[in-house]
Amino acid sequence: MRIDLNADLGEGLGQWSLGDDEALLEVVTSANVACGFHAGDPTVLRRVCEMAAERGVAIGAQVGYRDLHGFGRRFIDMPAEDLTNDVLYQIGALEAFARVAGTSVAYVKPHGALYNAIVHHEEQAAAVVEAVVRYDPALPVLGLPGSRWLALAGEAGLAAVAEAFADRAYTPEGTLVSRREKGAVLHDAEEIAARCVRMATTGDVVAVDGSVVAARAGSLCVHGDTPGAVEVARAVRSALESAGVAVSPFTGGAG
Amino acid sequence: MRIDLNADLGEGLGQWSLGDDEALLEVVTSANVACGFHAGDPTVLRRVCEMAAERGVAIGAQVGYRDLHGFGRRFIDMPAEDLTNDVLYQIGALEAFARVAGTSVAYVKPHGALYNAIVHHEEQAAAVVEAVVRYDPALPVLGLPGSRWLALAGEAGLAAVAEAFADRAYTPEGTLVSRREKGAVLHDAEEIAARCVRMATTGDVVAVDGSVVAARAGSLCVHGDTPGAVEVARAVRSALESAGVAVSPFTGGAG
Amino acid sequence: MRIDLNADLGEGLGQWSLGDDEALLEVVTSANVACGFHAGDPTVLRRVCEMAAERGVAIGAQVGYRDLHGFGRRFIDMPAEDLTNDVLYQIGALEAFARVAGTSVAYVKPHGALYNAIVHHEEQAAAVVEAVVRYDPALPVLGLPGSRWLALAGEAGLAAVAEAFADRAYTPEGTLVSRREKGAVLHDAEEIAARCVRMATTGDVVAVDGSVVAARAGSLCVHGDTPGAVEVARAVRSALESAGVAVSPFTGGAG
Amino acid sequence: MRIDLNADLGEGLGQWSLGDDEALLEVVTSANVACGFHAGDPTVLRRVCEMAAERGVAIGAQVGYRDLHGFGRRFIDMPAEDLTNDVLYQIGALEAFARVAGTSVAYVKPHGALYNAIVHHEEQAAAVVEAVVRYDPALPVLGLPGSRWLALAGEAGLAAVAEAFADRAYTPEGTLVSRREKGAVLHDAEEIAARCVRMATTGDVVAVDGSVVAARAGSLCVHGDTPGAVEVARAVRSALESAGVAVSPFTGGAG
Repeated sequence: MRIDLNADLGEGLGQWSLGDDEALLEVVTSANVACGFHAGDPTVLRRVCEMAAERGVAIGAQVGYRDLHGFGRRFIDMPAEDLTNDVLYQIGALEAFARVAGTSVAYVKPHGALYNAIVHHEEQAAAVVEAVVRYDPALPVLGLPGSRWLALAGEAGLAAVAEAFADRAYTPEGTLVSRREKGAVLHDAEEIAARCVRMATTGDVVAVDGSVVAARAGSLCVHGDTPGAVEVARAVRSALESAGVAVSPFTGGAG
Repeated sequence: MRIDLNADLGEGLGQWSLGDDEALLEVVTSANVACGFHAGDPTVLRRVCEMAAERGVAIGAQVGYRDLHGFGRRFIDMPAEDLTNDVLYQIGALEAFARVAGTSVAYVKPHGALYNAIVHHEEQAAAVVEAVVRYDPALPVLGLPGSRWLALAGEAGLAAVAEAFADRAYTPEGTLVSRREKGAVLHDAEEIAARCVRMATTGDVVAVDGSVVAARAGSLCVHGDTPGAVEVARAVRSALESAGVAVSPFTGGAG
Repeated sequence: MRIDLNADLGEGLGQWSLGDDEALLEVVTSANVACGFHAGDPTVLRRVCEMAAERGVAIGAQVGYRDLHGFGRRFIDMPAEDLTNDVLYQIGALEAFARVAGTSVAYVKPHGALYNAIVHHEEQAAAVVEAVVRYDPALPVLGLPGSRWLALAGEAGLAAVAEAFADRAYTPEGTLVSRREKGAVLHDAEEIAARCVRMATTGDVVAVDGSVVAARAGSLCVHGDTPGAVEVARAVRSALESAGVAVSPFTGGAG
Repeated sequence: MRIDLNADLGEGLGQWSLGDDEALLEVVTSANVACGFHAGDPTVLRRVCEMAAERGVAIGAQVGYRDLHGFGRRFIDMPAEDLTNDVLYQIGALEAFARVAGTSVAYVKPHGALYNAIVHHEEQAAAVVEAVVRYDPALPVLGLPGSRWLALAGEAGLAAVAEAFADRAYTPEGTLVSRREKGAVLHDAEEIAARCVRMATTGDVVAVDGSVVAARAGSLCVHGDTPGAVEVARAVRSALESAGVAVSPFTGGAG
């Protein structure tokens, strides 16, 4: 049994910091590193890449819309060609820092509103796939199970890896409970850790109505940008290891 | 006899265009492509890189300060570490498009106020050198003869190539006449072409006082962003070829 | 008989220029001045406001999404509160230059994707109305006839003024022919001028099927950013004046 | 006896927050509100202006260089005309939010590298003065005693008000000890409060060598962006009030 833990990192900008990158890098095995469009500046990217490389954490390009003011959380209805090129630009920029750190970009995971858009938005999903295929068809991608993004990526020959969410409630249909509904986000570290162990070992999770649904994933997404988040992530990793689950990058690195 | 012709390209942004990239790419052998910090957006970069690759024109990273509003022409007194990382970010971003176009970034030439600053500014010159060395010590750099930039680049083991200016007047000391002085910029295509032939064949140029000074260079810089500039560049190339000078990339590509 | 002519101005940015502001200011009576979010920098705003004030041209805030790379032509799905505040920020910024020029912002006309969004997007239309009401409920607004934007503005007590388009074809229903269809944009200066005279004098226009439809408007929108556009605008003004139509700002200034 | 307390506020941006604006607004009488160029987004500006207005805290335009990535702490060598217009733009933008909050911008205090530059940089100091004079010659300005900024502002007829620093060590010459030197910044709340009472009541302060130097000021600058800073600011205000010093805006508002 083996699972990957991924989290968003490198989301500071200049004077502003966000989350505790260093602490989180001791826990996760894959770092979704912001690339400067929705968050992250070159010095942040450099530091995160170097810290990740030192710890054997895989570096993923957390690509997003060009929107510092909205933190990439606002859908932008842009031409597919421009989106493809925005994604290429971001992967390339991050690659420079991965390279300086002695490694390379290991995967791509879109961020925020782009992540959500390409669950259904055919044209934008295809545009991001096109960017990865053009850049390097050997680069795996991470995303929501059942999304157009993963479907199109798979059709294009990319390794399309689904993720599950450590701290999110699931509907009986196996989708995420909307953040607008109560109980959508779990907060109890022990409960979250137990769910993660179940997802990693059996591939299923207990939904909000008590039924058991499939949540088979190559990676578990944990968060680092809220108070207590690092502690939750630590609890998840600790519980997984106690349960005999190997925690290592889904991209196949050492971990 | 052989010389390179370089020019700034890819300096449009979204709705705004600047210069005639396509026409200029028929003339020059090295394209200094803006990387998005002072000009250039990802779609512009993509197009210019693809057009350059098709024509065998070498792609250089025209790195600059992060300053779209000032077009990179305003000196920014920034920490060396941040400058190094800004340059790395830009090279990496451009590399993605060079890669998609089937080639790679072939050299680095700083732009605007950064170009001018590192003639004398030790710390910033060293910061840009550091970026190139870290990214790829085999990458040549282009700059002003006698600059700290080229001196430090050479000391760091980079191939440091000096450029001369097709349309600029020279002082008896062999430096450029300041743009603030009358006659600093030449406009007559025939005269400019003749000077370029002389620089390429004999390595010297007639200064403003009539004396002959050295202007030995691995590349001649032409401009494309003013009316008539492309015609001047064409005249330069034509005169060089008529004089038996091979026009090809200083980086050793096919041209 | 009286009509206003409005056009988009101040859409340059730093090194990049767009359209001939000075020429257009000799023709129009209302200048929709970009406010720096989708185009326009402070020095451009200053110059356009001063030129407009000298000529008695009314200054309107051409507010848009924060999107220099997309020129405000990409819909951004942002929270209403943030949109209200983005609009307030832009009006205020432009007001400083109107003030320095001895006048004040006389109206608000959204730009690009925002203009299009608030034809139907209830929440964003309300957000822009909220900004104007909060800033100055005496400020008139300009927009598309039948839009939610003008309806909500009117309900909120703002003077909501409809505009017609000098160079656009109309459907038999009185709406604009989509730009995606052939013949959507007219190019013949004489024809455009004649249509404008008809709209200004009778309030109707001949649709693409030959039927006559209502196009009653307080302002006619002309363009200045394409080759020949200024000539068309001049022809429109000249024809209007020859037909005895007074051309003056819809906001009631001297013109 | 009367003194003003000023602090930098509104320095968050989108997802990123900085300092505790609400807590600080209970302590200071003048809020230097970032205007969006080095920090602050429209929603932050709106909220800070409304909170300040409710508490009778004067709103000052904390104008800076356009440099979100450097937080306005990097000198930019820009043309005077552009700097004047950048300052006008920022004052106008903030004015919109002051207006919506039922008040108006009460003063101007440059930020960061611009604050430091105009201590000596004649051209930039004059450019900022020009902006204020053009915008509203009745607007007071705040700055460093002995700076070119205050001198030129005074010559131009502006009310030029000097500030002293609550937590900075002074040299025997009455200038600030450089931040590069040890002991430049004081941290003990009680000591800082006692120094502030002395500055407010006698107009002098004990320098690092034990000598007493003049530090007469219309306002005392406190900080809010470091841990414990709000507590220090509270201690300062409390000590001033206990000593019978009225704490109210230097601009003459109610406080």
